[in-house]
Amino acid sequence: MTEDIRAYMQTLGQQARDAAREMARADTGHKNAALHAMADALEEHAGDLKRANAEDLENGRANNLDAALLDRLELNDERIQGMAAGLRQIAGLPDPVGAIRDLAYRPSGIQVGRMRVPLGVIGIIYESRPNVTADAAALCLKSGNAAILRGGSEARHSNAAIADCVRAGLERAGLPRDAVQVVGTTDRAAVGELIRMDKYVDVLVPRGGKGLIERITAEASVPVIKHLDGICHVYIDDDANPEKAISVAYNAKTQRLGTCNTMETLLVAESMAGRVLPELGRRYRESEVEIRGCAQTREYIPEAVPARDEDWATEYLDAIVSIRVVPGLDEAIEHIDRHSSGHTESILTENWSRAQRFLREVDSSSVMVNASTRFADGFEYGLGAEIGISTDKLHARGPVGLEGLTTEKFIVLGDGQIRE
Amino acid sequence: MTEDIRAYMQTLGQQARDAAREMARADTGHKNAALHAMADALEEHAGDLKRANAEDLENGRANNLDAALLDRLELNDERIQGMAAGLRQIAGLPDPVGAIRDLAYRPSGIQVGRMRVPLGVIGIIYESRPNVTADAAALCLKSGNAAILRGGSEARHSNAAIADCVRAGLERAGLPRDAVQVVGTTDRAAVGELIRMDKYVDVLVPRGGKGLIERITAEASVPVIKHLDGICHVYIDDDANPEKAISVAYNAKTQRLGTCNTMETLLVAESMAGRVLPELGRRYRESEVEIRGCAQTREYIPEAVPARDEDWATEYLDAIVSIRVVPGLDEAIEHIDRHSSGHTESILTENWSRAQRFLREVDSSSVMVNASTRFADGFEYGLGAEIGISTDKLHARGPVGLEGLTTEKFIVLGDGQIRE
Repeated sequence: MTEDIRAYMQTLGQQARDAAREMARADTGHKNAALHAMADALEEHAGDLKRANAEDLENGRANNLDAALLDRLELNDERIQGMAAGLRQIAGLPDPVGAIRDLAYRPSGIQVGRMRVPLGVIGIIYESRPNVTADAAALCLKSGNAAILRGGSEARHSNAAIADCVRAGLERAGLPRDAVQVVGTTDRAAVGELIRMDKYVDVLVPRGGKGLIERITAEASVPVIKHLDGICHVYIDDDANPEKAISVAYNAKTQRLGTCNTMETLLVAESMAGRVLPELGRRYRESEVEIRGCAQTREYIPEAVPARDEDWATEYLDAIVSIRVVPGLDEAIEHIDRHSSGHTESILTENWSRAQRFLREVDSSSVMVNASTRFADGFEYGLGAEIGISTDKLHARGPVGLEGLTTEKFIVLGDGQIRE
Repeated sequence: MTEDIRAYMQTLGQQARDAAREMARADTGHKNAALHAMADALEEHAGDLKRANAEDLENGRANNLDAALLDRLELNDERIQGMAAGLRQIAGLPDPVGAIRDLAYRPSGIQVGRMRVPLGVIGIIYESRPNVTADAAALCLKSGNAAILRGGSEARHSNAAIADCVRAGLERAGLPRDAVQVVGTTDRAAVGELIRMDKYVDVLVPRGGKGLIERITAEASVPVIKHLDGICHVYIDDDANPEKAISVAYNAKTQRLGTCNTMETLLVAESMAGRVLPELGRRYRESEVEIRGCAQTREYIPEAVPARDEDWATEYLDAIVSIRVVPGLDEAIEHIDRHSSGHTESILTENWSRAQRFLREVDSSSVMVNASTRFADGFEYGLGAEIGISTDKLHARGPVGLEGLTTEKFIVLGDGQIRE
């Protein structure tokens, strides 16, 4: 059985590699035509999609999936329209492939520059939401790559139905169907194979919980663009504008509780604590956010519970905020250096020099001045799309759009030059 | 003993991490002052360097190192001057750190851009040449990183003496000595620790033979910028200019035999074979290059020995060339797809469309038109310096200069914006 799965995955890998070669050569017009054909196919087959999805939902209910999971799993007309609209939007983005930068003459007479090219084969491993099948396929296709998709077993009928539309769209545009393949077995051994097929797969993008991503990273021989946790900080500096500080610190925590760019810890300069904490305490309380504070915080917000050491290292993803009063910028940066997951941090200040220091010295994928951490997102940043947010430093860092699914090669244009 | 080494390496790691934080904040002037002070120190201590080097050379002779290795190991006045000059040259390069690109307003009112920042701590693992100690340290320093250097045991006295000068230079410029640390034990367990200290080390750059790099990659948990083999191709197209084609194909093989960007396989379009192969055969013969050819090649170069299948997959690094006649561009690209190591390939042609196809479709770190593969080099490309050549696709591809030792973070500049 395991041998069968190995052989099956190797076949997928070889097919993806062959398709990738064709995709790298595909021009922008054909890729966009495929994206539009995929969107049309999703709309035309809305009935099939909903029928396949009903089967997944039924199995899910039989397996006692919780309500939130069932909601994420569901495909209705609105969500199908949303998927199709997403594909058409990706068709409208500029094609990153083939762009040349910095082409310049060298003293030897050659011209040297860099050309953006696809990575090759992208492996995507994801959980419940079936729309990822269409989104991820579209991003890989637009960036000239082939994709191997491994969705959650709870969405397998929905994913297969979406993949049929995607592959039909590729075919209608004259591109290889195998540019998008969905792993057709729910056996977990298939993931084990996929993450070690470095001969066929150039990069993995796992989308799911921290546990999934850590497991994949530990076992993969294929490089992983990974998104671990988001322990994000807002620091209210001595020279913050109190109204803006309160508004941003409130928004960063409460605008959505469960996202990676939600603030988990608020740091406040001693001199500002009295001017912002009572009002923030009141607003968090109104929104039923539990406050865990240091001793000084609790002087201003008496109902806060004492923060324990582990609070500074916890991604709550919930209606909880930890608050610490610090002497000033140095101690704020020190706290961030020690406890941040390197995702997103923001300073609130009107002081030029401290803003500049924070921007330069904080080592996170997004560093902000006077803005809510909730802006750390591919769409808000203007990438036009997002396949994930990377907490790695190498290759892609922060929100990853089409560019993160490509690389650059050097090109050299000569007229018969030889090296002396 | 192994426990001691673990503890020792962890200490180096923590010291490097602390120094990296300071280095990331160091301004360009201080970094350049340190590079000049390092160069001065090398010149002032030339006598000490030569004495330490004499000890290594003596041990090397006692251990029967071969003449080539002893030559690489030797430090004389000229080489010490060369190291110092190299440091001053790096001081003259633009500082990549802090550069901001694409800062633009988004509809929400925030400005989003990307700032180039250091990677953090770089681990360099290298063999015999002691000048790498100064070069690699300088590149890491200029790019705002801390370095942990692990040189070959045969050069340990030379490396320690060079490191003394480097660290003295850092200190004179007011920067932390521990920004450059040389591993002070020749125990191999130290390498095993270094490559798994992902808590402290952000990236490894091994410099040495393929065996060393494969071993490190297989065992490392730290990401590796790796340079495996260079099986480079030149393809002489139907519409090549025969004089230029012969000149480039000769230069790509013979200008230096043992480098990674030396051509190993020459592909020739059928229609050109009669016009270039007899003359090329004569010139290779004159330079005592052994020719291994396909059947058609041997019609034009009768003394060529028959090429075997493994010849197409061999990096000779020697006075040997394999030659294959192919029907045309499609088959040349197919051969390259199958056998190239993804390093450097060049097409010789006057045909616009085929040149464009080759540039777009060949998936190697350098792709050239009408130029010798020997140009694939950081200095020839104008990077100003080179820490290695990457055959990876992610992060850094091709010659790696200062930029490859940095990453980018997103910066967001606002005025109190919140997400609605």
